[in-house]
Amino acid sequence: EELNGVGNLMDFLDEPFPDVGTYEDFHTIDWLREKSRDTDRHRKITSKSKESIWEFIKSLLDAWSGWLVMLLIGLLSGTLAGVIDLAVDWMTDLKEGVCLSALWYSHEQCCWTSNETTFADRDKCPQWQKWAELMTGYTEGAGVYLLNYFLYVLWALFFSFLAVSLVRVFAPYACGSGIPEIKTILSGFIIRGYLGKWTLLIKTVTLVLAVSSGLSLGKEGPLVHVACCCGNLFCSLFSKYSKNEGKRREVLSAAAAAGVSVAFGAPIGGVLFSLEEVSYYFPLKTLWRSFFAALVAAFTLRSINPFGNNRLVLFYVEYHTPWYMAELVPFILLGVFGGLWGTLFIRCNIAWCRRRKTTRLGKYPVLEVIAVTGITAVLAFPNPYTRRSTSELISELFNDCGALESSQLCDYINNPNMSRSVDDIPDRPAGPGVYSALWQLTLALVFKIVITIFTFGMKIPSGLFIPSMMAYHHHDWIIFKNWCRPGADCVTPGLYAMVGAAACLGGVTRMTVSLVVIMFELTGGLEYIVPLMAAAVTSKWVADAFGKEGIYEAHIQLNGYPYLDQDEFTHRTLATDVMRPRRNEPPLAVLTQDSTTVEDVETLIKDTDYNGFPVVVSHESERLIGFVQRRDLILNIKNARQKQDGVVSNSVVYFTEDAPQIPASNPQPLKLRRILNLSPFTVTDHTPMETVVDIFRKLGLRQCLVTRSGRLLGIITKKDVLRHMAQMMNQDPESIMFN
Amino acid sequence: EELNGVGNLMDFLDEPFPDVGTYEDFHTIDWLREKSRDTDRHRKITSKSKESIWEFIKSLLDAWSGWLVMLLIGLLSGTLAGVIDLAVDWMTDLKEGVCLSALWYSHEQCCWTSNETTFADRDKCPQWQKWAELMTGYTEGAGVYLLNYFLYVLWALFFSFLAVSLVRVFAPYACGSGIPEIKTILSGFIIRGYLGKWTLLIKTVTLVLAVSSGLSLGKEGPLVHVACCCGNLFCSLFSKYSKNEGKRREVLSAAAAAGVSVAFGAPIGGVLFSLEEVSYYFPLKTLWRSFFAALVAAFTLRSINPFGNNRLVLFYVEYHTPWYMAELVPFILLGVFGGLWGTLFIRCNIAWCRRRKTTRLGKYPVLEVIAVTGITAVLAFPNPYTRRSTSELISELFNDCGALESSQLCDYINNPNMSRSVDDIPDRPAGPGVYSALWQLTLALVFKIVITIFTFGMKIPSGLFIPSMMAYHHHDWIIFKNWCRPGADCVTPGLYAMVGAAACLGGVTRMTVSLVVIMFELTGGLEYIVPLMAAAVTSKWVADAFGKEGIYEAHIQLNGYPYLDQDEFTHRTLATDVMRPRRNEPPLAVLTQDSTTVEDVETLIKDTDYNGFPVVVSHESERLIGFVQRRDLILNIKNARQKQDGVVSNSVVYFTEDAPQIPASNPQPLKLRRILNLSPFTVTDHTPMETVVDIFRKLGLRQCLVTRSGRLLGIITKKDVLRHMAQMMNQDPESIMFN
Repeated sequence: EELNGVGNLMDFLDEPFPDVGTYEDFHTIDWLREKSRDTDRHRKITSKSKESIWEFIKSLLDAWSGWLVMLLIGLLSGTLAGVIDLAVDWMTDLKEGVCLSALWYSHEQCCWTSNETTFADRDKCPQWQKWAELMTGYTEGAGVYLLNYFLYVLWALFFSFLAVSLVRVFAPYACGSGIPEIKTILSGFIIRGYLGKWTLLIKTVTLVLAVSSGLSLGKEGPLVHVACCCGNLFCSLFSKYSKNEGKRREVLSAAAAAGVSVAFGAPIGGVLFSLEEVSYYFPLKTLWRSFFAALVAAFTLRSINPFGNNRLVLFYVEYHTPWYMAELVPFILLGVFGGLWGTLFIRCNIAWCRRRKTTRLGKYPVLEVIAVTGITAVLAFPNPYTRRSTSELISELFNDCGALESSQLCDYINNPNMSRSVDDIPDRPAGPGVYSALWQLTLALVFKIVITIFTFGMKIPSGLFIPSMMAYHHHDWIIFKNWCRPGADCVTPGLYAMVGAAACLGGVTRMTVSLVVIMFELTGGLEYIVPLMAAAVTSKWVADAFGKEGIYEAHIQLNGYPYLDQDEFTHRTLATDVMRPRRNEPPLAVLTQDSTTVEDVETLIKDTDYNGFPVVVSHESERLIGFVQRRDLILNIKNARQKQDGVVSNSVVYFTEDAPQIPASNPQPLKLRRILNLSPFTVTDHTPMETVVDIFRKLGLRQCLVTRSGRLLGIITKKDVLRHMAQMMNQDPESIMFN
Repeated sequence: EELNGVGNLMDFLDEPFPDVGTYEDFHTIDWLREKSRDTDRHRKITSKSKESIWEFIKSLLDAWSGWLVMLLIGLLSGTLAGVIDLAVDWMTDLKEGVCLSALWYSHEQCCWTSNETTFADRDKCPQWQKWAELMTGYTEGAGVYLLNYFLYVLWALFFSFLAVSLVRVFAPYACGSGIPEIKTILSGFIIRGYLGKWTLLIKTVTLVLAVSSGLSLGKEGPLVHVACCCGNLFCSLFSKYSKNEGKRREVLSAAAAAGVSVAFGAPIGGVLFSLEEVSYYFPLKTLWRSFFAALVAAFTLRSINPFGNNRLVLFYVEYHTPWYMAELVPFILLGVFGGLWGTLFIRCNIAWCRRRKTTRLGKYPVLEVIAVTGITAVLAFPNPYTRRSTSELISELFNDCGALESSQLCDYINNPNMSRSVDDIPDRPAGPGVYSALWQLTLALVFKIVITIFTFGMKIPSGLFIPSMMAYHHHDWIIFKNWCRPGADCVTPGLYAMVGAAACLGGVTRMTVSLVVIMFELTGGLEYIVPLMAAAVTSKWVADAFGKEGIYEAHIQLNGYPYLDQDEFTHRTLATDVMRPRRNEPPLAVLTQDSTTVEDVETLIKDTDYNGFPVVVSHESERLIGFVQRRDLILNIKNARQKQDGVVSNSVVYFTEDAPQIPASNPQPLKLRRILNLSPFTVTDHTPMETVVDIFRKLGLRQCLVTRSGRLLGIITKKDVLRHMAQMMNQDPESIMFN
């Protein structure tokens, strides 16, 4: 009879209750456990697949589901990127005017479809009317200018108000760039809802609004977040991914690659970005699948063709002139500038964000957004380089001055005797347009630098790739122009803008290979890889000299996320210095293998908030048997009390194979060996912390037990490791907030 | 007095004897130990750097030495690749004839420098004379043909005899592709001399000879070996790398990337190849440095410009015609073909190599090489597609038929009324040249397939990238030609050759991302990435269906190297099933912390060949204290016996902090705590083997101790893990030969 009862219990435990094996919000996952759960699942499917054809097909479907998810992610994120591009284009122009022939046309589309315009006047067409023109009928005059100005600011305020309100009401996680959080999630942290459906929807909509409002922010970081939301969405279709936090993160890594792929039109760069910057666990299988997802996304976007140029990004360029060795000097100077700018930006931005977090400022996010938008719009309108969207500006700066270029930057004095080919432009003296453009650009640079510091981190979707790229240095080339031999092909101004962009982006994010590869994919040739490399290396070295962390790591630290970065731990501490309990602290909360009662366990659970408890032979010997999760204990005891007869507060809980010898008068004992992890991770107290950190990082542990010659001494959790690391770097250990 | 003695001993131990901490030949390194040694070194330098300016400069030099090594590797491997290319070009032509104006000119260079030739006859010039012409004066006739034939074969035999003799006499490790061994070395195995200076020199020379002899082998794999030798060479300049096997492997990973970069002219592909295919431990720092080394190597090669086309490889192509969706069907078929060919090749080649290893065949390597060269040369000469070097052939196949192309493959019947543009070729009917070329190509394909199986694995430098790429499928396009609408741009034959090459290479090596990226860098555009991707994916799937391992893994297994691959271990065994001692075996050889005598230790060392011994509290309690290396024990006892008074056979060896209580009459005890590893890695006997495999792989362990509730039960070494894995896959566990 009693044996039967145990047998029933076993069957019952074979089907775990719904929540067993899941994690609580803001907790760290255990990678080893997730991995072995997946292997179990895989084994089950493999053995079942031999039973029937249906099971075999099911096992094939399971094996292919990974590729299917990648395909879906690629398709959806490519489509969303295309839609966002089109919408931003239309809404940015909506701030200036409207297309009368079709309201949903952007300025460029409106005039392209009009057959009344010549190529030279392709920006002007009767169908496109500025608001003031539409309302008053006049096209010139101070009043008209002021009315346009006023309406421009009004639209900007309206867009940003809409964005911040949507975020606040529907999806608070949709704000910001998302990359720090995605890095943390990929390293094995749970933030429920951060990659949810609502976040996806609201982030897409508000991203369009925020970019269109003219704020100094880019769509690149948020696109990574959007792609990761897509990844999470499709994960929920397959239990293989939805029920395993480890497998889910493999999909998310690939989704991040797809996101960068569509943001920059650089599939290989996207994969390397995911590998280098955001991912934590990146097996080769994921590399291959990420590449697939990134390619699908890139081709989906290309078939949507949002910019009408058959390219994935607005600022794709192809240069044709070579560069000279002597030019390496300004390129390296650009690198130094980029590194300094990166350091400055990170410091100022973090200081401002900390201020926002700790003072009353953080209580009025809507007001803050409105204020920044207002200031941005008011200051941006008078300068033609800041009035337009940042990607249009970058596109213009990157471009070579061609014969057909109408940009003021290309306003060189034309010599009618010379043939107007692309290459002879540097021979001509610069016209007044170039000088005025340079002034405007310098103002734009200063303005963007300052405003971006305040913008990044506000409560709306914001990326900083593009704003960082903006902060290039465009003065060198005018100096060089004088230095060049007349008649020879000279420097390519666009190249300087691009190298400067790479340097600044490198200084801010500390990307290395992925940055160079993204730029390489943008220029489409090996020709300019040396300048880019020189600038990126210099920029990283200069920036690293002032502080090792990039903007994302800085924001992770600011928010206290439990992220274990790849930097080497070089201090000489031992496991015994980090483990808990410390001296003077109460002894470690442990369970014994066969002498704790249900009531004892319940008291322990109530009195402490540890995630799990070590199980030892007895309080005297302290020899370690295994480790049991708090969550599993709670669920099992609750279930046993409800469904298993004879389990009362006085029942002994045992973790051994056989029930302990107890007098017949005692209540029925409760066997919990099923939830006992018999292979907890242990290190000795003499293990150097650098090894412990390495083990935590590489194996993705949640906790590790410390022993000395077989006796349990203490426990080290991921939080303890992070706190210790913060302490060693003279930072506040209490800044690590989550467990 | 006694305390003083101990103090002296401590000082003496502070300067370890020369061999402490090194590994024996054919042994596995302990990655965790190497890493912590490097951290110690780094700490020392950092703390010293504050003492004086000179120490500060030294610390800066130390920090920059990594980049310096990368620069040197890039320069040397780029130069060597250029020299090899030039020498192969010259010597391949030497088999046919000689340039009278300058003996060191190849055929092409000879005629380019001659000003008597027109462009159409650029292959013919009076300065270039075939051997028969030079000897007899006649240029035509059967006798002349036969004499040329005979001399061609003779030269081939001479080259290959020279190559195999040089390898046998001077550097036996210079044979083969080298990639399986490099994979094993990078995973943490010691093969002394495999990357030595002699190997570098002889491999470079014999590679030229082997390729020039016309054997069906490529220079790509050996170039990786050559680059790794360069890496090892420069490591010896810096104690940071030469004295730390872990750090040395970081440099070697980067060198492998540089090797692929020059072999294919694909720096990004090289880095991904190193990451995906050969490297084991690849931190982000290495990624960035590898990229640098790969770029330097590529630019060095480009400045040497061995092919005179300003490209890094002979077969760089730029296609201009788009491809159609319907073409995906033949591309996927090519993938299937590639996968099947890969499987077939691996099976046949491994069967042949096993035969060579186990039968008398292996005893006559020189004869084997001579025989294969003879057969290759005799069969190759009559067919113009096999007579030339394989890379020239590939270059011709990859190329579009342009108006200036003199290749027989482009012998379409010209319609004089039509303008001779590049794109209209498909409209013209194929001439007789195309049909005869097709026949010859088919024969060449069959011939190459068969001969490569026998060539790869012979005792001369041989790579198989290029031969695999040869085995493309060139029939489809003639079918498609009829299917195309006349007047429209149709299929690009070169693209089919390239997709076929990618498919075959994928089938043989199971490369994925790196393969597509290398091909992408060869074509220089995103346009053809989808066909390449489709073929690569199909090829890998088809080939994987027949067996998971690529050619390199198969050769690693054939040679019994201790290589732990990245595949997931899915069996349900536990640590207790794998650990030693097994049941019925004698108990584990252990030392006790304070009761073993010097003589006991010496007996244990003599009687066993274990690499190390666990140290326990006592034989009764079996509680684990630490682990001590065999090598360290031998060295320390030998030294103590020589230099330390009072240490005799009867002395007690102790590993505790304080000397054990012993009677005054006993000899002086020997303290060995310094060599005791106080943090040996342990797992419980219940740990699933999948976790153990994961730990071995990720942490790079050499051995792991198995405990149950604090008591030492056994030990698992890397060899045990590999044997167990072989057993689980129904392979002979004794095939794992090294430890």
